[in-house]
Amino acid sequence: MIVELPVETPFVKGHGTENDFVLLPDANGALEVSPGQVAALCDRRVGLGADGVIRVVRTDATDDPAAVAARGEAIWFMDYRNADGSLSEMCGNGVRVLALYLATHADVDAREPLPIATRDGIKTVTFGEVGITVDMGTPSLLGETRVSVGEQSWTATHVDLGNPHAVALVEVGLDTLPTPLPAPVYDEATYPHGVNVELVSRVGAPEDHHVAMRVHERGSGETRSCGTGACAVLAAVATADEAPRGTTYVVDVPGGRLHLEWTEAGTVLMTGPAVLVAEGWVTLAEEAVAEPVEEPVAVPS
Amino acid sequence: MIVELPVETPFVKGHGTENDFVLLPDANGALEVSPGQVAALCDRRVGLGADGVIRVVRTDATDDPAAVAARGEAIWFMDYRNADGSLSEMCGNGVRVLALYLATHADVDAREPLPIATRDGIKTVTFGEVGITVDMGTPSLLGETRVSVGEQSWTATHVDLGNPHAVALVEVGLDTLPTPLPAPVYDEATYPHGVNVELVSRVGAPEDHHVAMRVHERGSGETRSCGTGACAVLAAVATADEAPRGTTYVVDVPGGRLHLEWTEAGTVLMTGPAVLVAEGWVTLAEEAVAEPVEEPVAVPS
Repeated sequence: MIVELPVETPFVKGHGTENDFVLLPDANGALEVSPGQVAALCDRRVGLGADGVIRVVRTDATDDPAAVAARGEAIWFMDYRNADGSLSEMCGNGVRVLALYLATHADVDAREPLPIATRDGIKTVTFGEVGITVDMGTPSLLGETRVSVGEQSWTATHVDLGNPHAVALVEVGLDTLPTPLPAPVYDEATYPHGVNVELVSRVGAPEDHHVAMRVHERGSGETRSCGTGACAVLAAVATADEAPRGTTYVVDVPGGRLHLEWTEAGTVLMTGPAVLVAEGWVTLAEEAVAEPVEEPVAVPS
Repeated sequence: MIVELPVETPFVKGHGTENDFVLLPDANGALEVSPGQVAALCDRRVGLGADGVIRVVRTDATDDPAAVAARGEAIWFMDYRNADGSLSEMCGNGVRVLALYLATHADVDAREPLPIATRDGIKTVTFGEVGITVDMGTPSLLGETRVSVGEQSWTATHVDLGNPHAVALVEVGLDTLPTPLPAPVYDEATYPHGVNVELVSRVGAPEDHHVAMRVHERGSGETRSCGTGACAVLAAVATADEAPRGTTYVVDVPGGRLHLEWTEAGTVLMTGPAVLVAEGWVTLAEEAVAEPVEEPVAVPS
């Protein structure tokens, strides 16, 4: 069959440290996007391809309880969907891409802090010279554990950021580990629902406050970047270093560079890049485009 | 850093049986695309993501020798690039997507056969009720060989279509084999430069002329579709069936359905779907967008 679908829904594609998103501008809340349409859109061969979809809607134009609760404080709502179509609370790399979109396409002044409503509450982002900054919340340090990759095993720090992490400062060069990282072995009593594992090595001396990390995310395998993972790394390494609050660390992820600061208030500020790659119109379709279709379809003429 | 690149190059994204392409419309040959730009464009997180790029240019607007040779016979030239930026001759799934683009965006009448110049000569495509048809060339049958996946081993037919194939009619259900397919073991004396391996099972009785296949491409691993692989499967199965020339086979690939006919003239006609998914403007950049940048970049205001 020949499928000439209407190509009519505006989109913008962008990434933050190679964590990529399709944004669907929908200021007035006119767009209905089903889980199947999100999954088809994120499919890297059938659709545009992305790690997630962000519908960009005004808080006064959607009934989402998180948006309703933020009315009067935030104009814009980040309606984040995972690649499988399920709803998600927030994404640290995605909120920077959304902020750059708003600063370049909407009536937003990038010289001022920008409150963005999310299902994890209002996130206030700021635009600066090294990137876009967002408050990632408060890490909890929960003691020591162990993780292994192949024959190698390390002591790791158990850190929680709403999701569970194990951070291991490894002695080997990160590029000596296999690519992609095989699934690490972890303590199932500590992590009954799985764990995100960060393997960290220093770049320079400890006083340089600069590390590199690789990350294996539960459910995804090795990825190019993980915002909460970088925050967990900061918490574990700054604690090991006995660094005072307010110290800035540089954390290199495979997809780029992040700057992190554990503030006096206890939360972590993460600063990183955002890039807008393409924009135009995309076809929203149910999974039908991926299925063999038996019926003849009209030939374009 | 915040990277707000100019988003200015028109593109169309589409796929044929889930083999996906970024088309760059360039009727007048004004576009310079470096290998690095093609690779960045095909990167599935940094760029738009695709298996390849097709620059769509008129034969009278480019100096490519294949286009120059086709002037007077074909108006349009398929300037195909692999995802690594290297030039390629032709792609059976890509030429259908290109043909659909031309039928819907250019001054092309889909009721008539459409000659398209490629580095593999002029391909004449036709538009029909079950899809778009292209002549894929002449298969050569070169005898028997053996291939293995894990513990299982099969007799296979050695078929050449400009590239080497081993086609095995397996007795097991294709979904009982591991996903993704591990690299098959093959006879290195027969295939000194590697081989594409097709594993085939019948759908229905032999007289139904309907098979399903999975394919492991050299250099790529298991893929959703392989045009020359489907042609090799047709040649091997039709020979085993002693089917007369002109018999149409249905070949199901993981990414969709293809119809193939081995003609009296000895060439294979492959008919399949094409889908256009998105269009708009994309940023062409050297790999710089994927690299950590040290310099501060101006903040949008």
